[in-house]
Amino acid sequence: MKVGVVGMGLIGGSMAKAIHKKTEHTVIGWDASETVRLSAKLLEAADEFMVDGNPKDCDLVLIALYPQATVDYVRQHAKDFKKGAMVVDCAGVKRLVCQNVQDIAAENGFIFIGAHPMAGIERSGFNFSSEKIFEGATMILTPFRGTDIADVDRLSQFFKSIGFARMQVATDAEHDQMIAYTSQLAHVVSSAYIKSELSPNFKGFSAGSFHDMTRVAKLNETMWTELFLVNKDYLADEIDGLVERLQAYSKVIRNGDGDTLKAMLKDGKEKRLAVDVVKEFD
Amino acid sequence: MKVGVVGMGLIGGSMAKAIHKKTEHTVIGWDASETVRLSAKLLEAADEFMVDGNPKDCDLVLIALYPQATVDYVRQHAKDFKKGAMVVDCAGVKRLVCQNVQDIAAENGFIFIGAHPMAGIERSGFNFSSEKIFEGATMILTPFRGTDIADVDRLSQFFKSIGFARMQVATDAEHDQMIAYTSQLAHVVSSAYIKSELSPNFKGFSAGSFHDMTRVAKLNETMWTELFLVNKDYLADEIDGLVERLQAYSKVIRNGDGDTLKAMLKDGKEKRLAVDVVKEFD
Repeated sequence: MKVGVVGMGLIGGSMAKAIHKKTEHTVIGWDASETVRLSAKLLEAADEFMVDGNPKDCDLVLIALYPQATVDYVRQHAKDFKKGAMVVDCAGVKRLVCQNVQDIAAENGFIFIGAHPMAGIERSGFNFSSEKIFEGATMILTPFRGTDIADVDRLSQFFKSIGFARMQVATDAEHDQMIAYTSQLAHVVSSAYIKSELSPNFKGFSAGSFHDMTRVAKLNETMWTELFLVNKDYLADEIDGLVERLQAYSKVIRNGDGDTLKAMLKDGKEKRLAVDVVKEFD
Repeated sequence: MKVGVVGMGLIGGSMAKAIHKKTEHTVIGWDASETVRLSAKLLEAADEFMVDGNPKDCDLVLIALYPQATVDYVRQHAKDFKKGAMVVDCAGVKRLVCQNVQDIAAENGFIFIGAHPMAGIERSGFNFSSEKIFEGATMILTPFRGTDIADVDRLSQFFKSIGFARMQVATDAEHDQMIAYTSQLAHVVSSAYIKSELSPNFKGFSAGSFHDMTRVAKLNETMWTELFLVNKDYLADEIDGLVERLQAYSKVIRNGDGDTLKAMLKDGKEKRLAVDVVKEFD
């Protein structure tokens, strides 16, 4: 089939490369930047390119743009999608995208399914894209209520064919709430952690925990600002929850209350061990 | 020379194994637990054992006990150390230990140097010890003012011979303040992070950042309770500082202030990139 890839940054570029290398499908690429299109052509990440981003003739269209740009793209090309085509976005927040395109899809006769690849590196752009980044990763799918299970299954098989190990289905709101905790909060903490006045003196005093704790502070601030603000209710609640828990630790530590502190640390250890148990049965 | 190793848990056990395998020194081990002594004997982690923990005849004594137990041990055996012997502790906090043993060392004619190996895993006890855990690691040394540089150099050569890659010298207070930030705070955050009500549902929604952020919640709560409380002033200040910074993120996110948020994230990215630059010249 003909697969359109709109937006050839880290995720879109990697999708194009993975489809090109691992399947027989034809990749019809598009990126607003001519430099990116030329790079994609040179590296044979796409077989052809769309004209002005028009997705006509594509059986499957993967949109890998920022959230608001995704909505804008679907709106702009609402009448260009092939009837019955499957259109899938890859944005890191799902309510904004899914809620804004649902009616457009129904009115214009294409199928829309939200998706969020749980893969990424602390780099962005086509130059860092690779057909390997999805290997072993989870793809979260957020289909609308009433979506035909056969379509979800077809999409799922497609993503597995380009390297994804497993699918996770959720509503857009469930996705946004969980992602606020498992991913967005981690990026906020990492960014806040590195800003201690002591950080310039870390050399010689850091072990793995410091590096793990600050790794994702190396983020694309433009993209993450949009992701955070689109999800601000869930994310701010998670930050505030963590703040409250940290304040409880600070209090028992200042008070020298060893028994309480030990019980709190034991509880944290047990909750973390439970995560490992689940992982083992993945 | 004869090297005493007092306390054969993860760190002491690993030291004994590393000395035994990588040097010609004789290891005289000791652990209060008979089971540990028997394990150490079976695995040939020590050539001989002390009698009731008495360090007599040892040229170098490495103490790998909890902080208060370290002070108690030095006090109890103050008159047993060989004159001119070098006595080194491995505790993760240095003010409590160094400040309490300084006079004892001077009065009893042995040299004391504080040390903190920046190595460890989320496991404890002799059974997890390995001669490899110090490979490539930094050893922080906190000698008293006035310590002969030749002695510090001798100790430094010894630690390099068992695998350490580099030494970092600091005062005990500098050490405790930096460690509160680079290591202790990471453990507190990790423990607090995992306690969101959402954590049992993480499956399918977690990427590397969630795992990095929570990894060290798997800690030995008895040891870390003591380490935190002995360093409570510096640690509580670091927690409170992080809480303030997180509250600033929460506020701009709730307010939807994109320009400020973007500037905050960019600042965090740049501070984190500076860490990488320093690491490259390690």
